[in-house]
Amino acid sequence: MSIVTPTPTTRPAGPEETGPAPDPGEPGPGGPAAARRAVDTELAAFVDEKIHAAAPRLRPLLETVRGFLFSGGKRLRPLLCLSGWQAAGGHGASAPVLRAAASLELFHAFALVHDDLMDGSALRRGRPSLHRTLALRHRDHLAPGGAADPDRFGTGAALLAGDLLLSWSDELLHRAGLPADRLPGALALVDTMRNEVMQGQYLDLLVTGCPSAEPGRALEVARLKTAKYTVERPLHLGALLAGAGRPVLDACTAYALPVGEAFQLRDDLLGVFGDPAKTGKPATDDLRDGKATVLLALAFRLATPAQRGRLRQLVGRPDLGEREADTIRGMLTDTGARAEVERMIRDRYRAALQALHGAAFPPAVAEALRRIARAATTRPA
Amino acid sequence: MSIVTPTPTTRPAGPEETGPAPDPGEPGPGGPAAARRAVDTELAAFVDEKIHAAAPRLRPLLETVRGFLFSGGKRLRPLLCLSGWQAAGGHGASAPVLRAAASLELFHAFALVHDDLMDGSALRRGRPSLHRTLALRHRDHLAPGGAADPDRFGTGAALLAGDLLLSWSDELLHRAGLPADRLPGALALVDTMRNEVMQGQYLDLLVTGCPSAEPGRALEVARLKTAKYTVERPLHLGALLAGAGRPVLDACTAYALPVGEAFQLRDDLLGVFGDPAKTGKPATDDLRDGKATVLLALAFRLATPAQRGRLRQLVGRPDLGEREADTIRGMLTDTGARAEVERMIRDRYRAALQALHGAAFPPAVAEALRRIARAATTRPA
Repeated sequence: MSIVTPTPTTRPAGPEETGPAPDPGEPGPGGPAAARRAVDTELAAFVDEKIHAAAPRLRPLLETVRGFLFSGGKRLRPLLCLSGWQAAGGHGASAPVLRAAASLELFHAFALVHDDLMDGSALRRGRPSLHRTLALRHRDHLAPGGAADPDRFGTGAALLAGDLLLSWSDELLHRAGLPADRLPGALALVDTMRNEVMQGQYLDLLVTGCPSAEPGRALEVARLKTAKYTVERPLHLGALLAGAGRPVLDACTAYALPVGEAFQLRDDLLGVFGDPAKTGKPATDDLRDGKATVLLALAFRLATPAQRGRLRQLVGRPDLGEREADTIRGMLTDTGARAEVERMIRDRYRAALQALHGAAFPPAVAEALRRIARAATTRPA
Repeated sequence: MSIVTPTPTTRPAGPEETGPAPDPGEPGPGGPAAARRAVDTELAAFVDEKIHAAAPRLRPLLETVRGFLFSGGKRLRPLLCLSGWQAAGGHGASAPVLRAAASLELFHAFALVHDDLMDGSALRRGRPSLHRTLALRHRDHLAPGGAADPDRFGTGAALLAGDLLLSWSDELLHRAGLPADRLPGALALVDTMRNEVMQGQYLDLLVTGCPSAEPGRALEVARLKTAKYTVERPLHLGALLAGAGRPVLDACTAYALPVGEAFQLRDDLLGVFGDPAKTGKPATDDLRDGKATVLLALAFRLATPAQRGRLRQLVGRPDLGEREADTIRGMLTDTGARAEVERMIRDRYRAALQALHGAAFPPAVAEALRRIARAATTRPA
């Protein structure tokens, strides 16, 4: 039930690490690398001010949160927000827009922290997840002399840290310096995004451990959690700040939804057929967890009765071995589920390109978004 | 580490139930009972719209959250917000002000839900806490056919429900219809309030199980979590919406901080010396949990070395019996800690009245706030 990506029991790479990120090596002062640095500067300034203003006993917690924020992440949502701004005719990237973009990253950090708590994930971005870090640092750094059990302390402190990150994402947006006539629209959009992602999280929780549910349910979760949250709403936020009207917002949606869904579908395939050396995660976790993906749901639907019985026996078994996993993989291929997912990805990639073709975006923005669509659908990890 | 009130393992009464609430029986169309109804009308309208707009599979969760919101609570923070509005010269209670007041109740519900998660509290307001309710309703109502473990489902769903309530509190404030020139100030104030209460929560978490820490630390927690969050900031929000300047805000603070601290100090006394038939909670829980209250901290400080050794042996013992609890109570009295806390309450009550005396509030508002101060300091439960 993780936000954005599947939730293997251990996941060395977070959502952004495997996300449809623009090429980080792209050169030029207006490229994503420069934009990322500019976003990080705003993010750091905000968090450092918080640390500076905090009571001394609070600082170690806030510094741990800061470490988490800057331990990785490609800043995909902020970058898409800046793309939306440019798509709607915004030029450069003023401080208010960078701050609004950075506020999405604080929100995302909140989502990851609470997600790891819900899943009991010990790892995030190849390091201990925040609740584990807080538990580990409990005695020595955070609460010297404190009597609470380290795990309970870690859980409670991470729950609070997540709440704080969510509040901070508000505060950074409120204090971004947006023009008064843009603020209400931006707030309403962010409210919508939050409702969507939390609803997606809950629908995901409902199908947890039910890989045989209908494929439409898994696709609905992918739409709310990945397509809208990760791609559409960040684009919309930037576009709104540049004063975009309905046509630009609709063009963003027409691009974002297929790209986001394709991204999630590719993730589902990589979770089962990917090369662990490249994806950085075992290719058995999704099968062992019985993750409710479109891929597995399609397999259950397309299977013969005999195959379906065998799938039911194997998928979700906590003791699933490599041989049984291979048996499932064989059935995912034989039923045609794998090919069907590949077809869905191709369809969505085409739809996204088509949408870009019809959109009146500046050429540089369209090219950047095309690159993201390609990366999202063809990536090997 | 509960927000606002001490955290017995089981707590049949929530913070508001034991809070310094105005007399609910006060008659008249402008009295608290009418105000409470008006706030509840706005609250219900907002939540019902959310339920109506939600996907069918989401509705049972949202209806459970609605049930939690309306299962009790005296709406103390919204009422204080309305008092602040009137203190600054606001008349009646327009819909935008009622909605802003109601948004505080959504925030409070978020705080209670996450608080109960952190504490593992099974009860709230005499009923199962939200995570317990969600676990209990899991199979039959919420996720029929779902495979997740009920407790894990309840924890995850309540974490999400809390996140949703926090986001909703934003949304209701954003959509309250506040004048454009008031919105930024209101947002900034609410951001401050959130930082304070979450910092207070964390400081509380740090002293959990350390009843012998210095009294100043327990008082700092009481100030952030009760005085500022429950009394000062709600008054400020209402006052700001009425266009209050610094003098009115300062007068609110001068009243709020002593009242809030006195309220918490009375709560500490009731948690140990209160009549369980009236407080609705056992008088041994705080002692058994080793709750870091000002009362216990003072006892450790004022004790003779022999008393201190005995306190260390007894306070926080999970198997603490009635006889040992009586021994501790005796020491709380003999050391003078109990009398010192009573003195602190009296001082704060006087300071609050003094502040009201100096404030240029309309007489009806001053009288309502006097009544709250009295209730907060002398209540038997």
